Amino acid sequence: MNSKEPTANPFREGLSSRTVPEPCSVIIFGATGDLTRRKLIPALYNLAADGNLPSSVKIIGFARRSKSDGAFRADLEEATRQFSRQPVDDAVWETFADQVFYHCSEFDDLEGYRSLSAKLDAMDKKEGTCGRRLFYMAAGPDQFPSILKNLRESGLNKAPEGGWARVILEKPFGKDLPTARELNRLAGEAFPEADTFRIDHYLGKETAQNIMVLRFANSIFEGMWNARCIDHVQILSSEPLGVEGRGGYYDKSGALRDMVQNHLLQLLCLTAMEPPTDLSANSIRDEKVKVLRSLRPIRRGGSLPVVVRGQYAEGAVHGKPVPGYRQEADIPPDSATETYVALEVNIDNWRWAGVPFFIRIGKRLPKFATEIAVHFKAVPPVLFQGISGGLDHNVLVIRIQPDEGVSLRMSAKMPGSSLRIEPVKMDFHYGTSFGKASPEAYERLLLDAMSGDATLFARCDEVEEAWRFIDEVREGWDADDAGLCFYPAGSWGPEEADALLARHGLTWRRV
Amino acid sequence: MNSKEPTANPFREGLSSRTVPEPCSVIIFGATGDLTRRKLIPALYNLAADGNLPSSVKIIGFARRSKSDGAFRADLEEATRQFSRQPVDDAVWETFADQVFYHCSEFDDLEGYRSLSAKLDAMDKKEGTCGRRLFYMAAGPDQFPSILKNLRESGLNKAPEGGWARVILEKPFGKDLPTARELNRLAGEAFPEADTFRIDHYLGKETAQNIMVLRFANSIFEGMWNARCIDHVQILSSEPLGVEGRGGYYDKSGALRDMVQNHLLQLLCLTAMEPPTDLSANSIRDEKVKVLRSLRPIRRGGSLPVVVRGQYAEGAVHGKPVPGYRQEADIPPDSATETYVALEVNIDNWRWAGVPFFIRIGKRLPKFATEIAVHFKAVPPVLFQGISGGLDHNVLVIRIQPDEGVSLRMSAKMPGSSLRIEPVKMDFHYGTSFGKASPEAYERLLLDAMSGDATLFARCDEVEEAWRFIDEVREGWDADDAGLCFYPAGSWGPEEADALLARHGLTWRRV
Repeated sequence: MNSKEPTANPFREGLSSRTVPEPCSVIIFGATGDLTRRKLIPALYNLAADGNLPSSVKIIGFARRSKSDGAFRADLEEATRQFSRQPVDDAVWETFADQVFYHCSEFDDLEGYRSLSAKLDAMDKKEGTCGRRLFYMAAGPDQFPSILKNLRESGLNKAPEGGWARVILEKPFGKDLPTARELNRLAGEAFPEADTFRIDHYLGKETAQNIMVLRFANSIFEGMWNARCIDHVQILSSEPLGVEGRGGYYDKSGALRDMVQNHLLQLLCLTAMEPPTDLSANSIRDEKVKVLRSLRPIRRGGSLPVVVRGQYAEGAVHGKPVPGYRQEADIPPDSATETYVALEVNIDNWRWAGVPFFIRIGKRLPKFATEIAVHFKAVPPVLFQGISGGLDHNVLVIRIQPDEGVSLRMSAKMPGSSLRIEPVKMDFHYGTSFGKASPEAYERLLLDAMSGDATLFARCDEVEEAWRFIDEVREGWDADDAGLCFYPAGSWGPEEADALLARHGLTWRRV
Repeated sequence: MNSKEPTANPFREGLSSRTVPEPCSVIIFGATGDLTRRKLIPALYNLAADGNLPSSVKIIGFARRSKSDGAFRADLEEATRQFSRQPVDDAVWETFADQVFYHCSEFDDLEGYRSLSAKLDAMDKKEGTCGRRLFYMAAGPDQFPSILKNLRESGLNKAPEGGWARVILEKPFGKDLPTARELNRLAGEAFPEADTFRIDHYLGKETAQNIMVLRFANSIFEGMWNARCIDHVQILSSEPLGVEGRGGYYDKSGALRDMVQNHLLQLLCLTAMEPPTDLSANSIRDEKVKVLRSLRPIRRGGSLPVVVRGQYAEGAVHGKPVPGYRQEADIPPDSATETYVALEVNIDNWRWAGVPFFIRIGKRLPKFATEIAVHFKAVPPVLFQGISGGLDHNVLVIRIQPDEGVSLRMSAKMPGSSLRIEPVKMDFHYGTSFGKASPEAYERLLLDAMSGDATLFARCDEVEEAWRFIDEVREGWDADDAGLCFYPAGSWGPEEADALLARHGLTWRRV
């Protein structure tokens, strides 16, 4: 990649030396949508409340519905009070809300962009935002082409003298490799890669960021981080929720596209990548792309099944009866969309030869959890075999959510006059250890985009390589509708998934 | 070693399968001394209270002073109420005390042993102890030869048909190699090595026993337990106490003999030994002896000083002024006895080539602590150099006392929008994890001796190899009285000790 490297790299600078970004304007396309209300505005408010926002940040909501600034602000205030991670302070909200504006336009109406441009030019002069503009694509993905085209035609994609123009793309980045390529092409026509920020909010989570620190700042971990010492890795993302009113979108997407292609492959990359040459955004992303390129393709008709897809049937979650997926609103009664995926991924490189990575993701599972569990090889069975209690192998668990932290399962002698070995846990909790809550992922990512730091965003080739891998899995499925397994809501998924591990002599980790 | 291997090996059996030892009698020489009152009787009482003693255990105190069984029991009751780790239950004490007897005799009076023999024979018939006899040498070391000789001459060293006769030796096992050899010779004339139990109460502590489990039941530790991954090891034993009325004994011994020759070299052996072929007492002790044989001799006039000996001067501990060592009762005003030792030990074998082990032990230091700190090598300074917070290397700390447990220091990202790396600790506490207090070391060791398990006791060759190493250190000192350094009571020892580590670019770990 030879795209321009951003200059402000927080990996190079401590908290004290990191400066608050310069004043800028943030234009949100899809300003009346759920993402804006639940995530973006609460994140921006919290950044302001914590003193992390530039002295002047103008937020312009761009959407179709006619609405006054006042009505827009009132709407966002209600949302922020509901979704903010900290209580909303009236005075701080007042000051914050004064910087929020509404711009009414259809996404495909060039005039709306021209008037936005005029509005931004006026602001630049009056408010000191100086032509620094961050365009946030929070609208539906079908609107992206139209928005990108109009940004280009209105000239908004070009920053005024001394400013910058950046775009944040929300997932999905396409729905397969061809659509992702087309989206990358469209985005590339409007913005250079270095100004294109593809957001993956998993990468904004503290523990995801901590994976690299854990690995490369601790000799005990990196020294064992290879096929000689590691037996296998399990990456889990589970939630008790169903489709929750997103049925229309979800049924066209499914778990593989919605979660695996982006979030879980990103976690896999962070776990498996080689040490980068430095901590610049492109060096890190170069290494992640190398992992994606090393993934052994999962092709239709492989000798052994390495993928299981499931769909929840009716069942009970936390004791409450819930309907099956096909009974949910907006879901066709014969839908073959997967709400669960389990797959064995092999990384064909020197470090990981023979070490399977198992990914498991699903809706209507018993618990809400995202974690990476690194299972180390067992000790040779030469000293403690036959000891009561038995010997479990060591497992390092990186908990992404909830209760971010790290734990290490090890074997210890139980107190008492005879030898009884029990598994115990050394534990580290982010919250209690640092005495403060982690900021929300969106806070970090918005600030990074304002600073021009792309480290935690996906590069175009990452996205495309991930799709290349995922598309082959899908192609196998499309040819074989019979492959869908059903599991009762509230269970840990279809039984067929156990077989994936059983043939390695393994079981899924209990969470 | 071809001494007979005991059959009951608790390392082979779980708690549930470990049987309570058979009935026996325990004869304590030096029954009115401090060790009996503070440790042995409280330990035996606690074993009884927890149901771990055989159905019949007769305890016979052997000492010079004339005393009735009743007076002896009353005396022990007072001591047990003071020193027991759990409150004394009146009913349990009654039952326990009924099994305690007093036998009055000089240690060098053969008649006293003959009458003891008759008493034991009568008991064997009446009480079912069946000729199983455990002799505990809790008298002063100068009495050992006389007691051993009389045991032999009275025939008490030979078990009656179907029974056994074992001896427990308390430290000091001699005061140098020649005296240790002489003691081993005397003990060997009376008892075979397999029936000779040299007690080192550090080995009875749960965490000391856990060192082997940690190392050999956890692939993540043993895989890194070598010169490739470990930078150095620090073994610390510190206490705020002074000589506490033991001045007469202590001044003839000193820290090197009193603590390093036994306790600290044992901890070093457990930390450094190769995996034994099995968990039998002799296999384990074979490996410990190999470590002692690999210790690089510390000879007088070596090119660099690797030993620092210190003596506390007056100072303050926990804010309270305390006198210097030479001002303590029974200490000559020009005593050159060391109350502090720091030494660099090198183990010349493949595993530990180039990894120094630093031992530090002292009285009148600020804290009470015994720990083994394994310092792993630093990560290569290629990614996170210059990051604020800095990078500490990983340290695995095995806490022997107080608060037994294990912790691992690692580097983690501090929550926040920039990269700040802080050391954090993963921690495991014995007490809270298993929800019960560890039994006292003497409980475990007494039970092991009754069961004939010598795993946690020192073998004759271990003791002699340790003395060989220690004697060379002492010889250097005796030739150079000027080498004694003074440190204020309440400090962490003489400044000269810092230089031992400084030349490796290291510092002593802060506790």
